[in-house]
Amino acid sequence: MSLETGTYSKGLEGIIADETTVCRIDGQKGKLYYRGYAIEELARSSDFEEVTYLLLYEKLPSAAELAEWRRRMRASRTIPAQVEEMIKAFPPGAHPMQLLQSVVAYISSYVEHTIQHSTTCNCRQTLHQVVQVASVVAAYQRFREGKDLVRPRLDLSHGANFLFMFRGTEPEEYEGRIMDACLVLHAEHEFNASTFTARVVASTNSTCYCSISAAMGALHGSLHGGANEKVMDMLDAIGSRERVGAWMDKAIAEKRKVPGMGHREYKVKDPRSYVMEEFLKELSEKKGDGRLYEILKEVEKQFRERMEEKGKPLYPNVDFFSGAVYTLLGIPKLLFTPIFAMARVAGWLAHVLEQREHNNRIYRPESLYKGPAERPYVPLSGRTG
Amino acid sequence: MSLETGTYSKGLEGIIADETTVCRIDGQKGKLYYRGYAIEELARSSDFEEVTYLLLYEKLPSAAELAEWRRRMRASRTIPAQVEEMIKAFPPGAHPMQLLQSVVAYISSYVEHTIQHSTTCNCRQTLHQVVQVASVVAAYQRFREGKDLVRPRLDLSHGANFLFMFRGTEPEEYEGRIMDACLVLHAEHEFNASTFTARVVASTNSTCYCSISAAMGALHGSLHGGANEKVMDMLDAIGSRERVGAWMDKAIAEKRKVPGMGHREYKVKDPRSYVMEEFLKELSEKKGDGRLYEILKEVEKQFRERMEEKGKPLYPNVDFFSGAVYTLLGIPKLLFTPIFAMARVAGWLAHVLEQREHNNRIYRPESLYKGPAERPYVPLSGRTG
Repeated sequence: MSLETGTYSKGLEGIIADETTVCRIDGQKGKLYYRGYAIEELARSSDFEEVTYLLLYEKLPSAAELAEWRRRMRASRTIPAQVEEMIKAFPPGAHPMQLLQSVVAYISSYVEHTIQHSTTCNCRQTLHQVVQVASVVAAYQRFREGKDLVRPRLDLSHGANFLFMFRGTEPEEYEGRIMDACLVLHAEHEFNASTFTARVVASTNSTCYCSISAAMGALHGSLHGGANEKVMDMLDAIGSRERVGAWMDKAIAEKRKVPGMGHREYKVKDPRSYVMEEFLKELSEKKGDGRLYEILKEVEKQFRERMEEKGKPLYPNVDFFSGAVYTLLGIPKLLFTPIFAMARVAGWLAHVLEQREHNNRIYRPESLYKGPAERPYVPLSGRTG
Repeated sequence: MSLETGTYSKGLEGIIADETTVCRIDGQKGKLYYRGYAIEELARSSDFEEVTYLLLYEKLPSAAELAEWRRRMRASRTIPAQVEEMIKAFPPGAHPMQLLQSVVAYISSYVEHTIQHSTTCNCRQTLHQVVQVASVVAAYQRFREGKDLVRPRLDLSHGANFLFMFRGTEPEEYEGRIMDACLVLHAEHEFNASTFTARVVASTNSTCYCSISAAMGALHGSLHGGANEKVMDMLDAIGSRERVGAWMDKAIAEKRKVPGMGHREYKVKDPRSYVMEEFLKELSEKKGDGRLYEILKEVEKQFRERMEEKGKPLYPNVDFFSGAVYTLLGIPKLLFTPIFAMARVAGWLAHVLEQREHNNRIYRPESLYKGPAERPYVPLSGRTG
């Protein structure tokens, strides 16, 4: 295709790829809604299991529906023995996102129903592709530490059970609640690169497991997941509140980005960052360790002052506080992107189902050819160099 | 985003997603070029290893470069022991494309170099993500039949070695040559849904293995890979040349699609179908079994006559003949899409490398929100239904 006949937009910026009812970002006002519900309300009042229901069924469940839904999700927490082996044998130097991408495609083979290439596929029923991600992340960490696998507890929320399987001991009530709410905050965020990947794959009538596995591959990219790892790197480099000023002078002089600041979609402060900050404050108080919180608040204050001087205000996004929250929950940096995936998988599945239900066109954009013109094949004997 | 501010194109039809130098389709003239070389010439004169070099390095190799390249690709044919276990344990009812998607993400962890999130990643060096796909497909079939794994032969071409590992005996010269040329024919085809998936994932700076694994998920979709399976279903349903007329009457009366006919990109006959037909003719003669070829030629003739009457000519695409070729090579229908993947992986890697080298924008299209307006969260006790 040529520039005369097609619209060219690098990265598809400004191109509407599809309609959606899952999620809305209001970047001007700093609002985020799942199915019409504001993220702050969901993070404070709902939980990950209920939000998964909301994302998949487009409504909040009744008491009976929620009870049945929790039962179904919790019944799916145990991973197959062969998947345990895959996790155990995964080479230590490799990244766990690669393991997650692999496992999600693999576990489709264990689902009792046939994964169908159609809108009637009952993939809402078993939910292994959503629930087992947390079990895999926990198992990965246990094996990494040379410890035994911990079997799931069915009386705990999704977030609390993750901490239980990860640690081997029951977390405090506030820890489980905060972990679960972090999953709510990250469950969905419209047509980002990983969600778009899931939709492109679903548009071929591939299965939901294959679509979600593909999305994992996109989230693994250093330009997508992993921003909160960079915030932790910054916190490690700064070390204490007193050293923020000197670090900031150097960062600005070297024109380095301050991680966790600014977001392509939000012109004001990311609504999720307010909630995440509350969690960090609560955790810091309960654990009697305010060091990370103090550094972050000082970074936020100093960065805002300097950016306002320049007339280019930039505000914290959700990742600015999340790395510190996970650190206080005892979670190593290597697992930050996998935990993002544990949460986002709910949104991915909602988008995969939506894509399939209104699927009348496989994604097939055009390209602009800039390569060599037609040239004759030269046999090996006639080649030089 | 609203329709006033964004361009909406379902399936991204007519939207140029990026520039490329890998491949050009001239749909009006029925031509396909890899890096400027016509597909017919490559299929008849080159081979899969050389074409992989061409796709990745943008030029035909010198004799010394090709010798080193063949050595390197062949040295990568052996799959790790743990991956053997994954294949062996893969539940029999599940589809091998799900296994391939899983394995490609998993084998990244075995590569000796670190898979890097950058343009300098030396993923051209090891090529496990290209070469081992064939080994996995062969191993999958061996285990399915309750047989032992066959170790690769380093003196055979990629296609001939696949048949050797798959059968356990050395194929005839013409069989190996045709198998290899089929891989050349399917190695690359511009911005189709699976290649586009690979590019979207690569745009996040994810790894080449993760990008290719994601593309496998898209190829698994029934609207993408799998067309040649449907041609074989048709051949099975027809049974003999004499029954083509009756079958065609019924298909046209019921407005059913004739599989393997027509292609979104080509207005005339798919250039690959001419070459594939030659292979089918040669195989039919050598094996003394012309039944499938005769049925296909009769389907082509009768379908063309009827479509020309209606003024809507439709011509065979590459899949029209490929299923019969694979069947005569002894390959079961379940492996047709995995074999497509064995070939296309070369093109995917070329696109992943191109995306990374010119990557200044992560894919992030817009969506058009059609869901509920803001609504207040209702606690469980206040919900009805």
